[in-house]
This record gives sequence, C-alpha cells and structure tokens, in this order.
Amino acid sequence: MISRRKIALIVAGGSGQRMGHTTPKQFLELEGKPVLYHTIHAFLQAYEDTHIVLVLPEAHKGNLATVLAAFDRPPSVTLVDGGETRFHSVRNGLQVIPQEAVVFVHDGVRPLLSLSLIRTCYEEALAKGNAVPAIALKDSIREVDDEGNIAADRSRFRIIQTPQTFLSEQILPAFEQPYDPLFTDEATVVERFGYAVNLVEGEEQNIKITRPQDLIIAAAFLQERRK
Amino acid sequence: MISRRKIALIVAGGSGQRMGHTTPKQFLELEGKPVLYHTIHAFLQAYEDTHIVLVLPEAHKGNLATVLAAFDRPPSVTLVDGGETRFHSVRNGLQVIPQEAVVFVHDGVRPLLSLSLIRTCYEEALAKGNAVPAIALKDSIREVDDEGNIAADRSRFRIIQTPQTFLSEQILPAFEQPYDPLFTDEATVVERFGYAVNLVEGEEQNIKITRPQDLIIAAAFLQERRK
Repeated sequence: MISRRKIALIVAGGSGQRMGHTTPKQFLELEGKPVLYHTIHAFLQAYEDTHIVLVLPEAHKGNLATVLAAFDRPPSVTLVDGGETRFHSVRNGLQVIPQEAVVFVHDGVRPLLSLSLIRTCYEEALAKGNAVPAIALKDSIREVDDEGNIAADRSRFRIIQTPQTFLSEQILPAFEQPYDPLFTDEATVVERFGYAVNLVEGEEQNIKITRPQDLIIAAAFLQERRK
Repeated sequence: MISRRKIALIVAGGSGQRMGHTTPKQFLELEGKPVLYHTIHAFLQAYEDTHIVLVLPEAHKGNLATVLAAFDRPPSVTLVDGGETRFHSVRNGLQVIPQEAVVFVHDGVRPLLSLSLIRTCYEEALAKGNAVPAIALKDSIREVDDEGNIAADRSRFRIIQTPQTFLSEQILPAFEQPYDPLFTDEATVVERFGYAVNLVEGEEQNIKITRPQDLIIAAAFLQERRK
C-alpha cells in the first residue's frame, strides 16, 4: 500500500463560552498540560511525520506558545485563522493542504482519541476514500416534532466523532461548494458532493470537552489508562 | 394540588456482565457506599414518604443488606423478583403498587439524579399523567441501513432517561398488554396503550453506570457537587 502525506487539520476555533473560564477550553489544563497538547501529541504518536495545521481564532494565537512549550521537541505547526462557522474554519485550513494527502479533520477539544483510531482512519481512508468514526447510541431515543414525540429505534443511528478523515481528492473539491447551514460536519459536505461516507468504529472515550465536568471525566480516563 | 402516594420502583435487575467484576454494578461502591444506596437515597431526600419497591434478581438479594446498612436509618423496601426482560421486571414490581399512586420507574444504576428532577417528574405526572426526562443529543448523528448511511438532524431527537414517572391509572393497565420486544422502556408501553408521552428536561449528570469508567465519572460528578 502506498503511503501518503498525513495532515492533521485540528479545529480549535471554539470560544469556550460554556466553560466558565476566560481561557478557551482547548487551552485548559488536563493532567498538567493543555488539552490541545494532548490532541496534537496523539497524531504525532500515531505517525511522527504528520503535519499539524491548526485553525485558531486570531484572539487565541497568543496561547499557542504554551501548547508548544509542553512538548519535549515542539512540532512545527501551520497556523490558520478561524472562520465564521466550522465549515469556514475547515475551508481556511484546507487552503494550505497539498495534493495527494490524507487529511484528518479533528476537534481540538477531543484529546483522548487513541493511536489505533488514527491509524484505522488513515488506512480506511486510503482504501475507501474517507473514514468517519461513529459509535452506537447507548440510550433510548424519541423523535420530537411540533405535535409531540414518538419512540424511535436507536439502532438506526450512530453518533459521529472526529477525526473525519479524507483523501485530499475528496475533501478539497467538496469544500469548494457554497456554504449551507446543514454542513454541520465534514462528512455532510463530502456526502453532498456525491461521495458515500464510510463509517468506522469510534471510541467511547473520544469525548469532546465542552463543559467543566468533561475535564474531570477526561482526567479520570487518562488516570485509568495509566493503570 | 392533591398529593399522592409516591412509589419509586427501582429496577436493579442487571447482571453486571460488562463491569469485569463479579459484584453486580448496582452494588459496587461509589464514594464508599453502594451505587444503589445513592439511588434510593435521592428518592427519600426528594420526598421522605416515598415507598421503595426494588426489583432484584433472586441471586442478588443477599447484597441488599449491605445497601440498607449504608443508611443511618434504613428505609423499608419491598423486594420483588426480577423478570426475563425489563418489561417483565417492571411488571413484577407493579403487582405490589396501590391505586392512586405516582410511580417513578427508575434504573438502579442511575444514582446521580437530582432532587429537583424527581420533584419535577412528580409534579408533571400529577398535571399531565406522566413525565419522562429527556436531554438533547450533543453530537452529530447519521442514520444507517443496509445500503449505507446518511446525515440525520439531531435536533429531531431526544435521549431518554429515567425516572419515567406515571400515574398508576396510566401505567397499571398499560402493563397488562402482552409483551412486545419493542417495549424498551416504560414510555413505549404507555404510548402503545394510547397515552401521549410528556417529556421533561432531564440531566446530563443522570448517567447510567454500565462500564467501569462510568463509576469514575460518577465519582467525579459527586466530588464536583460537594465543592
């Protein structure tokens, strides 16, 4: 199998308003190091030749030095401005991406993804054009509308995570489409462009840190892994 | 408003096979006391006159003494045998429930529900016949079938929790229906019988303890609350 350039396009554009801190959540400390350190570190551990493209709002660029300082050997990072929506942020990041690459689009605030998930996404994207991690719903769900609500079959649905991983031939042209508010993630954009989305098994621990309690949960997971 | 007898029908029928312990998960320790202690305690704190009906597999009855010993003043508990499925377990519990009651059907392994959620469920059930806690989906979802998968709109769905709370006039006759494998929770049974399901806002922290890591998360939530 031919290997390809690996680009981790890490979106760290959140304003952190839900966290009750002034520091955006990707810069908060998890086990003594910024959340974003853990995220970047995972990609470099999976493939040391991964190039990191970091999409960051202008206002938070000052925090990057702290993230890089947490590394024994700071990686080189291409810094790109965040956009108005997730779509625009990712599109900005794609401007600096070479042809014939595999692009991992990943949430900066998902620091707990495993090396094995990254490798699975890479290999599946090489084989099938893309790879999007998904996990089963654990709880009963109901479908709601203006009239009321009814039981729904949870086995019909999957919860979607990142890294959403694509060959550059799929993601680059797909992001030339005009923006649509229905583009809530990259899979939706690529799907609209005409490619089938290839789901791979995600990870329960690959959580998104959006509330203060998520940092506690993430720390508990890291402690458990060290045992 | 007329008050009613309150029955917490707590289903603790899980075999705990996923936990990697021989002790069923409802008897594992959370902050020094069994999970099931916390669950029962929440109902007694919300309304001290709540009567506890505990549905427990025969094999685990021996563990109940430990749960009761954790109370300063052990409550009286009506013990009922677990059944083959969730539906059968709940139906067994309903055999001992009086007329003109409000019945909270709750998972024994959800120890973190708040007093305010219990009170909301009680008041809403009195006003509307039932109350079922539900929370929004935080993540993108996709719908899968044999052909593949497509983007789905997460805002159309709610994740369902317990305590699913009913007037005895709704739940008692509904559970006289023959069993159907689609009866995955009590709301589904009551809905099939012809009642509209009344959703109330659930709680992110009202998690179900099914994996070892859930105990770590629950402990972290409890520590956060004490701060």
